[in-house]
Amino acid sequence: MDPARLSLNQITVNTLGLPEALDACVRHDVGAIALWRDKIAAVGLDRAVELVAASGVRVSSVCRGGMFTTGDPADVLADNRRAVDEAAALGADALVLVCGPLTDHDLAGARARVRDGIAALLPHALAAGVPLAIEPLHPMMITERSVVVSLRQALDLCDDLGEGVGVVVDAYHVWWDPDLDAQLARARGRVRGYHVSDWLPRTSDLLLDRGMVGEGVIDLPRLSAAVAATGYDGPVEVEVLSSRWWAEDPDEVVRTARKRFEEFV
Amino acid sequence: MDPARLSLNQITVNTLGLPEALDACVRHDVGAIALWRDKIAAVGLDRAVELVAASGVRVSSVCRGGMFTTGDPADVLADNRRAVDEAAALGADALVLVCGPLTDHDLAGARARVRDGIAALLPHALAAGVPLAIEPLHPMMITERSVVVSLRQALDLCDDLGEGVGVVVDAYHVWWDPDLDAQLARARGRVRGYHVSDWLPRTSDLLLDRGMVGEGVIDLPRLSAAVAATGYDGPVEVEVLSSRWWAEDPDEVVRTARKRFEEFV
Repeated sequence: MDPARLSLNQITVNTLGLPEALDACVRHDVGAIALWRDKIAAVGLDRAVELVAASGVRVSSVCRGGMFTTGDPADVLADNRRAVDEAAALGADALVLVCGPLTDHDLAGARARVRDGIAALLPHALAAGVPLAIEPLHPMMITERSVVVSLRQALDLCDDLGEGVGVVVDAYHVWWDPDLDAQLARARGRVRGYHVSDWLPRTSDLLLDRGMVGEGVIDLPRLSAAVAATGYDGPVEVEVLSSRWWAEDPDEVVRTARKRFEEFV
Repeated sequence: MDPARLSLNQITVNTLGLPEALDACVRHDVGAIALWRDKIAAVGLDRAVELVAASGVRVSSVCRGGMFTTGDPADVLADNRRAVDEAAALGADALVLVCGPLTDHDLAGARARVRDGIAALLPHALAAGVPLAIEPLHPMMITERSVVVSLRQALDLCDDLGEGVGVVVDAYHVWWDPDLDAQLARARGRVRGYHVSDWLPRTSDLLLDRGMVGEGVIDLPRLSAAVAATGYDGPVEVEVLSSRWWAEDPDEVVRTARKRFEEFV
């Protein structure tokens, strides 16, 4: 894919702080970045806004709101409103919602809390002009991160909740789904982000063993074409949660991500 | 659930050979067992048939045929026919098919090979009177075991292939699926086996870290009721692939499985 569409999801270079990650984008001619809230908090929102403005780098998303099933709903809502405000201040294209995790035996109940949590947040997001983007995660992450595990389920939530809520398509999370083509056809106009990494045979960790683009078995060109057919033409985030890649020199990681992005995505 | 329906899937006591696993069933009043082909081969089929007959234990399934994507299709077919013959000789209720794995970037192609592989095997299975049972596995096992990852996909294959092909519902593999209730409603009369274990938060291994029944977060009573509503009233296998449980005394494992089965399934 044209590297002009590349966005560096900050967690791909997780050892860097926000200023250093922005510098890496500028150094490697990466036009967009996805920012994580812990890294924003580490410098403070105002300083983060200044740094982003000075860098000229676009913020493709803020990661993440959600986590509707943990703690008191009022506290969760308040924290999610702050996430919306951060995304608005940073001019982010969307706030990514990670919708879980499951903490007990009541999966249907957890899913209902997610639905209600998004519904409660939506008026604030609409007022702030920040699109909410539900990211279905791989079913193996259900007790760690998300009870929304398929694109179909995420789109059903969008249908239910109406304007202001879309989806993120993350290759790692959805590539296995026999229903994927049909759901992408249904997603037209509702894709708010596209994330790429790769699935490694003999994955050794459910959270932190993703492959760099091109290292694994996902047919990314095919998926990219299907996402393009939904009308999505915004930034494409390279998001590699990998303790192996985190141990590498971040400059080498960004260089590799850029090269693989051109070659494989 | 009534322990009269309990079947011990042999891999739950993986350190035991076939004779010792049958003895454990008799000792703990477990009326059925699921046999693995490597354990059958270790004693020889004829001896396995004698041992099963002498024990009075019913064979709920033979694990496993399938693996249609690895190696030459003619060799795979020949091996699957032998698996059918073993299941027939042992009087097994079904031959479980594990349908994969993915070995390259062509997921649609692998799924087509699985379909064609089952179609090629089916006449032999029908002639032998052995029901084939497609077991959808958890999507995280796609590069290790199976490109059939959901009950919907397995039932679509059944629709396509016709008489003689059903499904296994394994709680560990399908519990996460938002589409599960709808697909179980569709599965009426086509369930050939029901397997139980549990999903552990912080799962540490994609293949060998299942929980014993009652250790995890799966709502087994609810799932058992939905499986019962399909009309399935045969043996229910406790199948725990767990390096942790394999390190325990097998008698203690079977005792625990039986107790938890009564309490939680």
